[in-house]
Amino acid sequence: MPRIVQKFGGTSVKDVEHIHKVAKIIAATYEKNKELAVVVSAMGHTTDKLIDLAKQINNDFNPRELDVLLATGEQVSISLLTMALQSLGLKAKSFTGAQAGIITDSKHGYSSILEVRTSSIEKSLAEGEIAVVAGFQGITESGAITTIGRGGSDTTAVALAAALKAEWCDIYTDVNGVYTTDPRNLSSARRLAAISYEEMLELAASGAQVLNARSVELAMNMQVPVRLRSTFEPDDIGTLITNKMSAPSYTVCGIACDTNQVSFNLKIRKRVNKKTTGNNNVELHYLDGVSKLLNRFQKLGIHIDMVTLLGKDDESAPELSFTAHKQSANKVYAEIQMLNQDLGEPDVAVDSEIVKISVVGNGLSARRGLVSAIFDVLSEASVPVKMLSTGDIKVTALVHQNYKDKAIEEIHERFCVYPPTDVRVFAS
Amino acid sequence: MPRIVQKFGGTSVKDVEHIHKVAKIIAATYEKNKELAVVVSAMGHTTDKLIDLAKQINNDFNPRELDVLLATGEQVSISLLTMALQSLGLKAKSFTGAQAGIITDSKHGYSSILEVRTSSIEKSLAEGEIAVVAGFQGITESGAITTIGRGGSDTTAVALAAALKAEWCDIYTDVNGVYTTDPRNLSSARRLAAISYEEMLELAASGAQVLNARSVELAMNMQVPVRLRSTFEPDDIGTLITNKMSAPSYTVCGIACDTNQVSFNLKIRKRVNKKTTGNNNVELHYLDGVSKLLNRFQKLGIHIDMVTLLGKDDESAPELSFTAHKQSANKVYAEIQMLNQDLGEPDVAVDSEIVKISVVGNGLSARRGLVSAIFDVLSEASVPVKMLSTGDIKVTALVHQNYKDKAIEEIHERFCVYPPTDVRVFAS
Repeated sequence: MPRIVQKFGGTSVKDVEHIHKVAKIIAATYEKNKELAVVVSAMGHTTDKLIDLAKQINNDFNPRELDVLLATGEQVSISLLTMALQSLGLKAKSFTGAQAGIITDSKHGYSSILEVRTSSIEKSLAEGEIAVVAGFQGITESGAITTIGRGGSDTTAVALAAALKAEWCDIYTDVNGVYTTDPRNLSSARRLAAISYEEMLELAASGAQVLNARSVELAMNMQVPVRLRSTFEPDDIGTLITNKMSAPSYTVCGIACDTNQVSFNLKIRKRVNKKTTGNNNVELHYLDGVSKLLNRFQKLGIHIDMVTLLGKDDESAPELSFTAHKQSANKVYAEIQMLNQDLGEPDVAVDSEIVKISVVGNGLSARRGLVSAIFDVLSEASVPVKMLSTGDIKVTALVHQNYKDKAIEEIHERFCVYPPTDVRVFAS
Repeated sequence: MPRIVQKFGGTSVKDVEHIHKVAKIIAATYEKNKELAVVVSAMGHTTDKLIDLAKQINNDFNPRELDVLLATGEQVSISLLTMALQSLGLKAKSFTGAQAGIITDSKHGYSSILEVRTSSIEKSLAEGEIAVVAGFQGITESGAITTIGRGGSDTTAVALAAALKAEWCDIYTDVNGVYTTDPRNLSSARRLAAISYEEMLELAASGAQVLNARSVELAMNMQVPVRLRSTFEPDDIGTLITNKMSAPSYTVCGIACDTNQVSFNLKIRKRVNKKTTGNNNVELHYLDGVSKLLNRFQKLGIHIDMVTLLGKDDESAPELSFTAHKQSANKVYAEIQMLNQDLGEPDVAVDSEIVKISVVGNGLSARRGLVSAIFDVLSEASVPVKMLSTGDIKVTALVHQNYKDKAIEEIHERFCVYPPTDVRVFAS
């Protein structure tokens, strides 16, 4: 009997009415004689509300205790969804993370799943029950309740699908698939019938909020086909995320946009290290400072991107540029100030009026010329590019926020011209 | 180091402000160098709200799933209270029922605690942490989440105190002790410094809502001294509930009143069993019916009280009387109708305008004359008694609800005249 895992996010179960709607989707799947495990998130904005409550008690809350608090959110969802399934005459049983055997490490708030011990769920499935599993949460070997961070329910679903050797994993959300770019930014955006893990990973990491990057990485490592589909269009099969062999090979599969970044530019003021003389020592001096800075970021868990160190000659000052998330901007600035001496007392420019536009596609690596083509498109459209970086299957450009729509439109117009693939090819 | 258990009910932790207040009470106890485990209920009306939510999903909800849902209530409380303790600079750790090793049977919604496996809590106490434990909930041997019914947090606290060999168990609530009768009914009610388990048990079973009867029974069996005290008067040591040896011997320790009862009176219409002839068979016929009825009640979990079967002679019809809780009145009536033939087609009278007044005291058994004295008092005051039953240390009278206050006042006036004991005798 084919076995599948379905995941429903917080907006899909935000109230009693929506829970009943989700129950009907699950019932329809179950009727097709599938063995079925369902992963569910906390209702609507429950998690945010619980965090607010914790802050009211103790602004400097303990991560272990916050996990105990947050885990109640999904526990409420699993019991209500199970009751809703039972009201349809279906056999169903709920499982907290602990009961589902989701074993994690003990990094409270951002734990990693180490193992899924499926014996209880296997037993439930064997008895014809729909197993309703709490997403986002797990338990350590020593019995502490953990959570696996934002978007964690996607990761739970993929890990469970892998452990149960499911045929595929449906991720139900409020959009009906992966688009060439966010349709809210560009109405001509097209939905993809399928996309490779690698491309999806780059899109997710570049700001496409449709799917959590960690879950895509896990799906890639475990080779779990993931189908992204909409709770509100249950008959639509959405976008299939799969390996390169099964996915069509797009030159450019999509354009992601991240508006939550701030760019930093440090102009190192050339300066002789007082303890030594000669150019070599001066150079070492500021490189040493840069290295210290990057180490500090790593230690503090501050993720920076688009790091570029512009070469120097004797005439111009060396420059360090990078982007960071708006939330860590203050911390980044403080760290730079702290290492002011080591960095050669740089002039620091912070720019928060930028957007990061990433063009992703497996074809990019094969077509090196594309990088300059993208640069050309933006240049022809008079969009000034502040920074550009390239990866294996991604090109990222930093532009002023006023050029966001124009840049996306021009690149989309020029590169996302492949004919829409017939979605039925990937139908289940 | 002396070890104690403290329990805080839902009204004591109903919001953030109250949680901080409770944390301060705990901190004050901890400062006296005690090893301390704290049991806490769900915040305010959380449990009722969750039950409402379940009913919205599926009015015929599954008891296993309801337990999964309700258990989130205390899980929220333990994490918040632990955070509040940590904000005072104290070491604290939360424990769900499962983590605290509260092992129960699998009767969802009204489970019994079978065992408390204290190793995790012992470890926590040894590390100088305050262990914050979820009341009301436990886990079966096979890992299902259970709840132990209304008032269950009191039972958790007493069971934990017994398992941890605590010196005593503080039950904090919104009243400051056990009174001779409910002060809301009679302003001259006096607070008791101490009371025996047996007396407290009879008062609780007779409608005194101050403490859950199951928890008193457990305290008696485990010989755990319980101190009932108020969250709002933390310096007041309340009432000590202890064994007969330690408690003063009152003739009458208190008067409880239960306004949630309905009385049933069945006048059996004498009737010859068609299959036989002769009085003996007729008698067997209705007694057989009564037996069937009582068995049904037992099976359905309907608790009835004050069961009396009035003797019959050939002239008058036999009568069966009993009281039941208002909530089960409809079920009781339906069962009587179903057994109508077996019961000899009785005339059924239902009276919901009654109150049950119970007079409790260890001295009652020694002074048999008291029963008639109580009857005399009510008679002198022109309070008609509808029914009277006696137990080892309890006399219960059923009167019309209009006589409630008068009956309580007269009995209190006449019997609760012992001098108030110096509460300091029982101070910790």
